[in-house]
Amino acid sequence: MDERDGMATMVETVRELAAGARQAARWLAGTSSRERDELLGAMADELLGATEAILAANSQDLAEAADRPAAFRDRLTLTPERVAQMAGALRQVADRPDPLGRGESWTRPNGLRIHRVRVPLGVVGLIYEARPNVTAEATALALKAGNAILLRGGSEAFRSNQAIVAALRQGARAAGAPAELVSLLPAGRESARALMTTPGVVDVLIPRGGPALIRSVVEEARVPVIETGAGNCHTYVHQDADLEMALRIAVNAKVQRPGVCNAMETLLVHREVAAAFLPRVGEALRAHGVTLRGCPRTRELLPWAEPATDEDWATEYLDLILAVRVVDDLDEALDHIRRYTTGHSEAIVTRSLEAARRFQEEVDAAAVYVNASTRFTDGGEFGFGAEVGISTQKLHARGPMGLEALTTTRYVVEGDGQIR
Amino acid sequence: MDERDGMATMVETVRELAAGARQAARWLAGTSSRERDELLGAMADELLGATEAILAANSQDLAEAADRPAAFRDRLTLTPERVAQMAGALRQVADRPDPLGRGESWTRPNGLRIHRVRVPLGVVGLIYEARPNVTAEATALALKAGNAILLRGGSEAFRSNQAIVAALRQGARAAGAPAELVSLLPAGRESARALMTTPGVVDVLIPRGGPALIRSVVEEARVPVIETGAGNCHTYVHQDADLEMALRIAVNAKVQRPGVCNAMETLLVHREVAAAFLPRVGEALRAHGVTLRGCPRTRELLPWAEPATDEDWATEYLDLILAVRVVDDLDEALDHIRRYTTGHSEAIVTRSLEAARRFQEEVDAAAVYVNASTRFTDGGEFGFGAEVGISTQKLHARGPMGLEALTTTRYVVEGDGQIR
Repeated sequence: MDERDGMATMVETVRELAAGARQAARWLAGTSSRERDELLGAMADELLGATEAILAANSQDLAEAADRPAAFRDRLTLTPERVAQMAGALRQVADRPDPLGRGESWTRPNGLRIHRVRVPLGVVGLIYEARPNVTAEATALALKAGNAILLRGGSEAFRSNQAIVAALRQGARAAGAPAELVSLLPAGRESARALMTTPGVVDVLIPRGGPALIRSVVEEARVPVIETGAGNCHTYVHQDADLEMALRIAVNAKVQRPGVCNAMETLLVHREVAAAFLPRVGEALRAHGVTLRGCPRTRELLPWAEPATDEDWATEYLDLILAVRVVDDLDEALDHIRRYTTGHSEAIVTRSLEAARRFQEEVDAAAVYVNASTRFTDGGEFGFGAEVGISTQKLHARGPMGLEALTTTRYVVEGDGQIR
Repeated sequence: MDERDGMATMVETVRELAAGARQAARWLAGTSSRERDELLGAMADELLGATEAILAANSQDLAEAADRPAAFRDRLTLTPERVAQMAGALRQVADRPDPLGRGESWTRPNGLRIHRVRVPLGVVGLIYEARPNVTAEATALALKAGNAILLRGGSEAFRSNQAIVAALRQGARAAGAPAELVSLLPAGRESARALMTTPGVVDVLIPRGGPALIRSVVEEARVPVIETGAGNCHTYVHQDADLEMALRIAVNAKVQRPGVCNAMETLLVHREVAAAFLPRVGEALRAHGVTLRGCPRTRELLPWAEPATDEDWATEYLDLILAVRVVDDLDEALDHIRRYTTGHSEAIVTRSLEAARRFQEEVDAAAVYVNASTRFTDGGEFGFGAEVGISTQKLHARGPMGLEALTTTRYVVEGDGQIR
């Protein structure tokens, strides 16, 4: 079968799954808040009951991933505890307030009553990578907001995802709901392309994973997309910064969890404090196994740092690597950030109210920090609970996305014969 | 110069204009609400002062449009009154409440203070067609919300738009603001394509015009788009409808202004009232010069109606043409709407609370009407004042877009050294 036939067949498969999801979403839109919460509870029960089957499938995935790096295998690995955590996540989402149904109403001079009500999007599509727990969490968030979901996970976790989705669908049946509320697409390039390029299949497509995945979705998608997670995050240490604080923040932002989108990738330091700060932060980071790539002025102070190229300023390492640049002043720091930011999270460490205000006003990012680590850009840390992802776009949702990001509004207008 | 060179040059032109707009937007983001309102006032003054120049340019456009239909020429025509109306629109927008700066704040257990503030999008792009008054209105809305705007109007109105933009830029200078807050792109296909396909140039692109324009933008755009205005609107007359009311509503929705997106394009009638209703509404519509295209059951009652094809059900006529179909029941009406709706505005005429509720819950459109004309889907009629357009998409903005649709949010997080 040549590639084009393969693609055509895949588009058909996706269309069929989407038609089922669309109908299931219509059913779900007619349920009450309590019914949706009970549905999530039933799914949690089935998930726990299926623990053995899920772990068996997971061990098959792990066997095939034998030669992958440890960090990758760790993200892929499921244990009884992690399955229980997934079930717990389903229940936590069920306990959150219902995002649907709220709204404002007003009456126009001609007597028209206008209601703006919050309603589900319909069908949510998610393209994601290794971590199988995303399968359960994303399903919980989509369903809580009244949507059906089409999941396209990574091939490395395919068997695990199949087992998890089977349990979730069994939970739906047990609750008297259509199993088509959750569907898993085949893994691989073609299913992702079909999902991205077939209009009318999903109401929103959310890519969740590494920069390459997100770029390809944003570039190829012909359906509405919420761009997430590209985080080339900066921390700027101003000349008047509390250097103890700056040290704590810089080390935390880089090493506490280097593989995530809100980790720091570039450190900018005002030249007046470079000599006092860089040697200390350099040693601290080196002690955590961080490789530095520095500008010439950085390397005068830290000769052991590798030379940084323009490419380094633009790179999201997601690793124990940090680009370091000495800047003349706040303006140069702002220019650097303006040029290289991906609009995720940016931080300044300063004692100056004026510098803080300028940074807050001029940096165009989802989250702008003063004297705190960029690692806090997270639904849980912001107090939203589990998140769908972190939007780096400006339309619809920006920053950590809670349940409301999976809804839209509709105007319901009631009259008694009004005409224009 | 071959086409590719032409396109490359155009992308350069757009990039340069966009760079100026980006800088101007940064300047505007630093202004106060009062300064932005005074800027709009100064633009209104200059617009009035330039009335002669604008009318002269407009008459040149009209001379070239001599062989266009009367309706087209009317939309293109400017008069002293219409220029005064444009200036008035600028002042009205200035008088609206500032959409910026508002937001919520909360403090996390670790002491982090999180502020969610409403901020400008940055640079707004608008691709639109004949009506030159849109040039002033859209500029007012974009600037009020703190954005710069790149305008790409139709070639038929190019000279008029040039004269209007010249006056607006003069107003900016008079208010001590950068003229680059408003720029007019060359007319023609290439400038539109450059705007749609060059990432990073605009933060949002809004197409405002006919179905063909909107389709091409939605299909070709590589930048964030808000889809507007495709309106294949239905009115369904239920078996228990007040037929007097149904007649008023149907005639109004079709003929009061047939060329706009919230006009009715298909009338659905329950078979039990078809014999009583169709002859009367048919005559009334015919008296207004409306051509009917009916299903077989319609044509049994209205032999003079043309036969409707499947294509008719899917067509937005924007003209004195109406597709008419007799349906067996509410379910068949809902199925028809589900299949052919563009998600703009849909109406039911009924006395039944249950039918009304099902219609409100099951029809997936920006505006769903019970016993009123679809013509009310409009920023002014909803009480929002001037509108940017009517969004038919579900993300970011849905239905008539007020000023808030031209803004986004940013999280500003303040700490005293918090780390994870």
